[in-house]
Amino acid sequence: MPITEQDKERILSQCKRFLAMHYPRSPREVLHDLTEFADPEAKADRYGGGELITSFEEEIAHLLGKEAAVFMPSGTMCQPIALRIWCERKGRKRVAYHPTCHLEIHEHDAYQRLHGLERVLLGAEQHLFTLEDLKSVPEALGALLIELPQREIGGQLPSWEELVEITSWARERGIATHLDGARLWECKPFYQREYAEIAGLFDSVYVSFYKVLDGIAGAVLAGPADVIAEARIWQRRQGGNLISLYPYVLSARQGMQKHLGRIDEYCAKAREIAAALSDLPQIEILPNPPQTNMLHLFLRGDRERLVDAAWRVAEETQTVLFRMLTPTLVPQYSKFELSIGSASLEIPTEEIVPLFRRVFELAE
Amino acid sequence: MPITEQDKERILSQCKRFLAMHYPRSPREVLHDLTEFADPEAKADRYGGGELITSFEEEIAHLLGKEAAVFMPSGTMCQPIALRIWCERKGRKRVAYHPTCHLEIHEHDAYQRLHGLERVLLGAEQHLFTLEDLKSVPEALGALLIELPQREIGGQLPSWEELVEITSWARERGIATHLDGARLWECKPFYQREYAEIAGLFDSVYVSFYKVLDGIAGAVLAGPADVIAEARIWQRRQGGNLISLYPYVLSARQGMQKHLGRIDEYCAKAREIAAALSDLPQIEILPNPPQTNMLHLFLRGDRERLVDAAWRVAEETQTVLFRMLTPTLVPQYSKFELSIGSASLEIPTEEIVPLFRRVFELAE
Repeated sequence: MPITEQDKERILSQCKRFLAMHYPRSPREVLHDLTEFADPEAKADRYGGGELITSFEEEIAHLLGKEAAVFMPSGTMCQPIALRIWCERKGRKRVAYHPTCHLEIHEHDAYQRLHGLERVLLGAEQHLFTLEDLKSVPEALGALLIELPQREIGGQLPSWEELVEITSWARERGIATHLDGARLWECKPFYQREYAEIAGLFDSVYVSFYKVLDGIAGAVLAGPADVIAEARIWQRRQGGNLISLYPYVLSARQGMQKHLGRIDEYCAKAREIAAALSDLPQIEILPNPPQTNMLHLFLRGDRERLVDAAWRVAEETQTVLFRMLTPTLVPQYSKFELSIGSASLEIPTEEIVPLFRRVFELAE
Repeated sequence: MPITEQDKERILSQCKRFLAMHYPRSPREVLHDLTEFADPEAKADRYGGGELITSFEEEIAHLLGKEAAVFMPSGTMCQPIALRIWCERKGRKRVAYHPTCHLEIHEHDAYQRLHGLERVLLGAEQHLFTLEDLKSVPEALGALLIELPQREIGGQLPSWEELVEITSWARERGIATHLDGARLWECKPFYQREYAEIAGLFDSVYVSFYKVLDGIAGAVLAGPADVIAEARIWQRRQGGNLISLYPYVLSARQGMQKHLGRIDEYCAKAREIAAALSDLPQIEILPNPPQTNMLHLFLRGDRERLVDAAWRVAEETQTVLFRMLTPTLVPQYSKFELSIGSASLEIPTEEIVPLFRRVFELAE
């Protein structure tokens, strides 16, 4: 009998271990934790003003080595705004990015519909783009967006040398460089460099506070003071300059304190898990070894039976491995994205292979 | 010696009574109250999906007599989106509204810069606009926005008959009607009609959850199902379709429970206070009597001395009357906006006149 949504609810509520990310918290638990975390003396931010939000923006600007920063509700708000400002300044309304860029696949063409920009796709969606891909663009570019790591291909990163080459080439040609740092926090172990040095290759940078930091939502755009001042006007226009953003700001600050110091552990665990699962003939891993705390796992077998089996294993072992699988173009293979966090660390790596073995066994 | 910002902080922290709105709460207090309020079983909303947000949207849609509703971070996000959708459908990119409309004075021309709309101003900023003002527009209109109550002129409302006339005239000409209901909750006592009946005169309506409802932030756009479905796409484009909005949704829901049933009291208190203060020759009140829980008070005297005096009175009596005054065009007169809420009710009206007398005395 296939697993129903109610079954899933019931199984989840009994699960004690989670392979991905952090232990799930209910809104009530998150709000309780935030209440404990909030300074009793702190005053609500008001339309982007006030110590609570300003001091956090300054901290992030400093951490990223930028002059200024602005807290916004989302990266979807930050990034087209940054690109529009750069393109206006450069007098060229065209931006270049990877085919799997968030702007391309998740934003309903906001860059074009709201900001009148055009885009050029760099390289193919299966790989990182290269300097050659960038050089081959025949049209004038106003800005270049690079996502570190490239989420849709398993969180891959270019080498430091390539990154320097690409951003230098753009800078020499007067093309603004913007860093999509949705998962920038997760890149430090790979580059073994400070955030300010990585962000230093770019004119502007967006970072996120949910994902590995486990905040409720929220983002920061950092860059030169004049660009950030202009971004605040666009934030207002887009309806993101709220009377108060403190639930997100406090939760971002708490997330930084809880998780930023543990990124090394998360990334090491990702490599460990990938190494262990590489023994299973039914699993392919991208990238292998992982370069951040993320890996994409491609499972061989019937997709529905595999998902069903994962839920059965969750029921048997109180351990959630994955909840769904996405089809791929390759027959017999479907995939899921695994990001490693504090909950993942609680599952000994040697127990993970037998759990997946059991999934494949049940799915046969 | 003039009052410094530090003085104000110190005085505020000792104050026990507040003439305006509700007792101030710190972020920590708000988060604590929300934690208590949140259902332990409730799950976080996810990109606009999930029972927590959907059930609230349905409740508001029902209350406003509309087919569907979408929760957004702000009214600044809701309204240009609604107008853009209507204008596209009507094939006319021009909207008409009052000169003090939020879109005109607080949004950096977002309607034009993001959505390519044009606007026509109706009437003069000192009054409500009339049907005659609307009829005198020589250009084709796609949409008409009416703000109930008109905040910048003290929260004035047209009579029900005028409102019906204006919206009918627009509807007959194929002009979409949108209600800026930033303070719609406060209109019920004046019209003595259900919210659904008031909103029923309009094709779409925006309502807000902070202001009198004391939520953290947040707004809802309600209207026909197809318009709301399209609005969700624009919300996504503008960066307002957050992974989780539950702090705002829960706080909106809590605000409805706490304050919606007390609007009558707040409005009655506003009328009482206006009647009492009308005895003072140094005060003019707009509108008088108030039509909602709002009144604008115009004080005669030196602006800086009056503000200073109000802070002295706050220090003497632990009662905050007003914190600042805005200049007006009329020499000798400056103004502040007073909105009545639960904190206001705790100050007996007969004590309010002597408090203002004392302000004028100290400011002489």
